[in-house]
Amino acid sequence: MSLTLSLQRSMQLTPTKTATIFGSRRRSFQVYGERVARLAGALRALGMQPNERVGILALNSDRFLECVMAVWWAGGVLNPVNIRWSVPEIVYSLDDCDTRILIVDDAFAPLAPRISATARHAPLFIHADEDQTPVGMHAYEALIDAHDAVEDAGRGGDDLACIMYTGGTTGHPKGVMQSHMNLWAAAVQRLAETPILRNSTALHVVPLFHIAGLGRIVMQSIAGECQAVLPGFDARQVLEIIERDKVTDTVMVPTMIQAVLNHPDFHKFDLSSFKRLGYGASPSASVMVEQAVRLLPHVELSHAYGLTEACPVVSSSGPAHHSEAARKSGLSRSAGLPAFGVLVRIVDADGNEVPRGVVGEITARGPNIMLGYWNKPEETARALRDGWLFTGDGGYMDAEGNLFIVDRIKDMIVSGGENVYSAEVENAIAQHPAVAMCAVIGIPHEKWGEAVHAVVVRKPGTELDEEAVRAHCRKLIASYKCPKTVVFRDELPLSSAGKILKRDLREPYWPRKAAV
Amino acid sequence: MSLTLSLQRSMQLTPTKTATIFGSRRRSFQVYGERVARLAGALRALGMQPNERVGILALNSDRFLECVMAVWWAGGVLNPVNIRWSVPEIVYSLDDCDTRILIVDDAFAPLAPRISATARHAPLFIHADEDQTPVGMHAYEALIDAHDAVEDAGRGGDDLACIMYTGGTTGHPKGVMQSHMNLWAAAVQRLAETPILRNSTALHVVPLFHIAGLGRIVMQSIAGECQAVLPGFDARQVLEIIERDKVTDTVMVPTMIQAVLNHPDFHKFDLSSFKRLGYGASPSASVMVEQAVRLLPHVELSHAYGLTEACPVVSSSGPAHHSEAARKSGLSRSAGLPAFGVLVRIVDADGNEVPRGVVGEITARGPNIMLGYWNKPEETARALRDGWLFTGDGGYMDAEGNLFIVDRIKDMIVSGGENVYSAEVENAIAQHPAVAMCAVIGIPHEKWGEAVHAVVVRKPGTELDEEAVRAHCRKLIASYKCPKTVVFRDELPLSSAGKILKRDLREPYWPRKAAV
Repeated sequence: MSLTLSLQRSMQLTPTKTATIFGSRRRSFQVYGERVARLAGALRALGMQPNERVGILALNSDRFLECVMAVWWAGGVLNPVNIRWSVPEIVYSLDDCDTRILIVDDAFAPLAPRISATARHAPLFIHADEDQTPVGMHAYEALIDAHDAVEDAGRGGDDLACIMYTGGTTGHPKGVMQSHMNLWAAAVQRLAETPILRNSTALHVVPLFHIAGLGRIVMQSIAGECQAVLPGFDARQVLEIIERDKVTDTVMVPTMIQAVLNHPDFHKFDLSSFKRLGYGASPSASVMVEQAVRLLPHVELSHAYGLTEACPVVSSSGPAHHSEAARKSGLSRSAGLPAFGVLVRIVDADGNEVPRGVVGEITARGPNIMLGYWNKPEETARALRDGWLFTGDGGYMDAEGNLFIVDRIKDMIVSGGENVYSAEVENAIAQHPAVAMCAVIGIPHEKWGEAVHAVVVRKPGTELDEEAVRAHCRKLIASYKCPKTVVFRDELPLSSAGKILKRDLREPYWPRKAAV
Repeated sequence: MSLTLSLQRSMQLTPTKTATIFGSRRRSFQVYGERVARLAGALRALGMQPNERVGILALNSDRFLECVMAVWWAGGVLNPVNIRWSVPEIVYSLDDCDTRILIVDDAFAPLAPRISATARHAPLFIHADEDQTPVGMHAYEALIDAHDAVEDAGRGGDDLACIMYTGGTTGHPKGVMQSHMNLWAAAVQRLAETPILRNSTALHVVPLFHIAGLGRIVMQSIAGECQAVLPGFDARQVLEIIERDKVTDTVMVPTMIQAVLNHPDFHKFDLSSFKRLGYGASPSASVMVEQAVRLLPHVELSHAYGLTEACPVVSSSGPAHHSEAARKSGLSRSAGLPAFGVLVRIVDADGNEVPRGVVGEITARGPNIMLGYWNKPEETARALRDGWLFTGDGGYMDAEGNLFIVDRIKDMIVSGGENVYSAEVENAIAQHPAVAMCAVIGIPHEKWGEAVHAVVVRKPGTELDEEAVRAHCRKLIASYKCPKTVVFRDELPLSSAGKILKRDLREPYWPRKAAV
């Protein structure tokens, strides 16, 4: 299978149907597809080699969709850069997988000089936006105008489609290698389980550089349906676009959904076209779910648990898990059943399956599981064993096969839908000369699900306050990774092996888990 | 992906749910899966090597389902033998792909001595049925009892899953190599397009050695739903099992459907559980469709066009193509739209796409397209070009993308759902000493769709009548391939290149195609 074959199919079968909506701009499948094929021609003319990485650092737009498809059409590999990253983080990812062509929009074009100055190879920039193209960059529309459509390179199967960076437990982001097969299988498995909405318009609100966004691009492409795009999250704009463009379904993180439901003008909008609302990436969303059921009674709720390494869905729950009975029994708090085509096992430290109800590490196998981490054989060997992905997440499975997530073994914090690895934040804090020792944990946060919390031990005779820690971190890592709160202690609880006992640090903040 | 992973998933998530129904025997997923894993252990203990072919020559049964899964579980490749073949044809397929283990039921056990006597390697037989196991064969239930369950071999991706023989234009059957990916993608694409019936019971009536049968085994396995099996087609049994086991859906060829609809006791059965009826493999089914709509108004009709090389679906039509308007406009006679994930092009003799409405050869690409023909690089190169399958079928695509099949370029006859290649029948007839020349064509037949018709030129001074031709053929080829009618002529119409002009032979029998 090829991720672009479905676009060719739509160009053939429904050329005049609307493919993309962005603001007042609508493009048909014919126009969208032709632009993709021309942009692919431009990429090749710019020197893009087969399987070369092409980066995109941009807010959501219809052009983002075109770039994704064009890179694949040209036979390249997509590197969708996290828009919340600092320049050193961006450069790390470009250097790591040797990305020499970078597509940027107006929001990120100003970073170009700093990227060029520090990257191993100063990238060739393509400017894809409305403002005037900065000097030294190629203009997106001019490239499309100047190049003929090329034939689809026909990549597929185990060919690499995407390298998507996630935070690493070792302190460095890891490039998750997703094949065409991985992304295609993940999408088609999900479609098999959740019937397609015919003549639908899916709205992209979550960042498209995320697998949650990219995965839905693939799904909607296979379904041959329309995609509407918002540049980023704004509660009023979400309401406006649902009404105006008759959006049928979207996926958001719970904090976004709550902002939409709580918007003062919520009741003024006609949301009758809206049929499905997916959410994910939050330890607990009960309050949001109750509110959504009340305010959007005609909308089907679905919840997915996944990770970039699984492209992304491992398990999901649908309407049956959101019924009144399910909300009362607590079933609605589960991450649902293993996805179609995915086998899940909860295992102990030795890799043996544990009985139902017992907490262990969640492992998964299926055609959607990544090829591995780019140039990181050791991390790959740890994550993929005998075909099984070791997720690093803790959970249990009930008698009916429902998955419940209870902990993160790999020490990761999910804040506002973003994964923050404690190790990355700890590395940043530790670089401050006044820090003797530190530990970073996630603590409950009403709006973000979890908040990044740092516990710091100062070096004797130094001074350091909360704001200084945050200011120091902001220079090194994305602001969403910087600690929201910092406390200072004289010492940290250590195990006999000298390892920081994070469990002890977390305990005061988290209610004790109910016995399984 | 692996074709057995879904069985593991069902064993884990719904162990007590009914997996298979055969007569009064019902087996849960737990029992079914354990039997599969033990049978896989037995196959390995019998010496089956990784990727070795295992044949099955049997009527439909729940054991057939177990055998399919067990061969894959053990890491083998399935060779599902056509039950209508003559012994020389059976032996040809066993020899061709070196099949040394053959599973037979009571119906075919009597052929064992003749198979052993003529096959290059006398097969090791496994007897899978109720009667006493013939001397020299291994007893199926004893094997399952005697062996422990083994781990799933975890085959997947481009690993070969099945070699399925189809008639060849050159006169010899060709082994279509279907990978795990091919079969999995074909099934999941179809599920994505046609929402799963939850808590369904699919009935297998068409022979399971056919891709139409095997494809539905895979689909229902991925969906984790129940499969009921009839040993073969019988109109009353179909009605009985729908009522008794609350069958929700099945696929039949039009001649079978008509026999069911025309059954004198049709109205005595409660068919309220029945929701979907698929059909295929017939040039024209308008009469059947009208009758089905009248007698089964609550049932969704779907039609698929496909071939073994596409595992099998290339295009399909659903309820929208069977509405009153569609039946009036003739849209219901189309083979529907290209399947999800499948790209279809109608091309001229040079391989260039023709405009809409113009007849050409139907070509298709997608993840469901076979790997090639076993040990037949030349035939493979003819059928697969640049990733496209050349189907040998003629057709056109209308403005909306609907596919209409108008002719068979590869000179094949579809009679009662079976493909008959003219060349094979011609080869058989030509071996009679009194035959100077012959041509075989398909002519319309009320019951079978098409009937095999032979036009024969006798050698001067010889005598030969219709019955003698048929008797001669029955010794060499399956009876469904033998000519239903034979006419004798003094000469055959020839082209300037000396090629028989079959179009001229067909003309008196077929109404002129409507202008496109």
